[in-house]
Amino acid sequence: MLVVKVGGSQGIPLDGVCEDVRDLVRQGERLLLVHGASALTNWLSAALGKPPRFVTSLSGVESRYTDRETLEIFCMAYVGKMNKLFVERLQQLGVQAVGLCGADGRIFEGERKAVIKVVENGKRKVLRDDYTGRVERVNTALLTLLLDHGYTPVLCPPAISYAGELINVDGDRAAAVLAGALRAHTLLILSNVPGLLRNVHDERSLIPHVPRAELEAALALAQGRMKKKIMGAAEALAQGVKRVVLGDARLPHPIRQALSGQGTRID
Amino acid sequence: MLVVKVGGSQGIPLDGVCEDVRDLVRQGERLLLVHGASALTNWLSAALGKPPRFVTSLSGVESRYTDRETLEIFCMAYVGKMNKLFVERLQQLGVQAVGLCGADGRIFEGERKAVIKVVENGKRKVLRDDYTGRVERVNTALLTLLLDHGYTPVLCPPAISYAGELINVDGDRAAAVLAGALRAHTLLILSNVPGLLRNVHDERSLIPHVPRAELEAALALAQGRMKKKIMGAAEALAQGVKRVVLGDARLPHPIRQALSGQGTRID
Repeated sequence: MLVVKVGGSQGIPLDGVCEDVRDLVRQGERLLLVHGASALTNWLSAALGKPPRFVTSLSGVESRYTDRETLEIFCMAYVGKMNKLFVERLQQLGVQAVGLCGADGRIFEGERKAVIKVVENGKRKVLRDDYTGRVERVNTALLTLLLDHGYTPVLCPPAISYAGELINVDGDRAAAVLAGALRAHTLLILSNVPGLLRNVHDERSLIPHVPRAELEAALALAQGRMKKKIMGAAEALAQGVKRVVLGDARLPHPIRQALSGQGTRID
Repeated sequence: MLVVKVGGSQGIPLDGVCEDVRDLVRQGERLLLVHGASALTNWLSAALGKPPRFVTSLSGVESRYTDRETLEIFCMAYVGKMNKLFVERLQQLGVQAVGLCGADGRIFEGERKAVIKVVENGKRKVLRDDYTGRVERVNTALLTLLLDHGYTPVLCPPAISYAGELINVDGDRAAAVLAGALRAHTLLILSNVPGLLRNVHDERSLIPHVPRAELEAALALAQGRMKKKIMGAAEALAQGVKRVVLGDARLPHPIRQALSGQGTRID
């Protein structure tokens, strides 16, 4: 069992990922794809006159402020556009892809955190009416059912709260919880950087290996969105996943290359 | 087995439909919901600076001209927004809803018709690069798998072409083919009118019953989008569905009321 998360930043091509998925599925690998769509959501938000707003939690983690209007824009970008582009490309390659968001069949379930404390422009604020949360439970039965019948799940946020509200959740951490729940051997987290960098401005400063014991130091080193990937890696390992690889989604064969030693291996 | 199609015109509330679905699912009915999102697509198209364009085929059937850009807007409105609103509401009511479009697992498959002949402003035109088609095949295995395990499929266009392209298909006719393929006893088509009207401007002119033999006359009488509903009804009956009801989605309990004799029964 392999879980592959592909980021949603600008400049990540679908083709390499989808071709690698096809090859692995043909070889009999049980594989689930999780994707983001953050750049697309920013674009759609701006186009609809509701520019994205990012807030930083007191512990320094950045996230998208998601009121109800933003949530619906988020769904259009993630589920309506990016998810369908992946399904279409995979179907063209002969993969029986089924696109689902975390709300479908309660695949990703968690608690909504309506009130968040953030720092904005150096000032502490309390924001209400946020539709965000964190994945705590996975409907593995539905995913196993699909895998057992030859379907390849293509998953994305939003998740669903226990009360049944759509909620924005971090895709990297959702993929981590998913990998743990399915007892995946490997979680790949592919994005538009080569892996964890010692110096964020120098792609040659890649750290090829982070032993589990050094995850805390890695988290301190990580900048911006890489923070959540390291947090996701830690969560996955804690739940029994054997290794996490932070790989480069821009490579011609991003999955194959991450599996064969490129990127940052965490185990 | 019951297939319910809910239209996507303005002014159709979700709540009544979703509550009726909950009641029927609780009673053990095997039910699939198919929905539209045409008003939402019009709104999103306009908001994104790509106003909708409707064309009329040589046989007098109106449809949305769907180039690739429109197709992606269509997906955002149908799959990203309306489908997720239905799934969210149903989940809040305790229904294990799973939202899927026709491309997922090739649920709705058909041939793409890239070149269409239309009449626009009284002139014949040939339009190329259209992403439309008609549902010819249904992946009943996937839908049956979900139903057998307690999930309620919530389906919508787009479909997928044999070559693996997303295509815009008519939702009423997709629901009809679905009902036929699943050997449903009843197909309900709910929209923002009481049923087939003798006079389209007078809601009291409802025709309560159309025998199968009089479908051609009904088709001649039908105006605008009602034409496709009658065509859908004819297709469903031809494929073994016992009865089709054209019901009013605006009623407090639109499904229950359509099943108990309101609207236009076709059999």
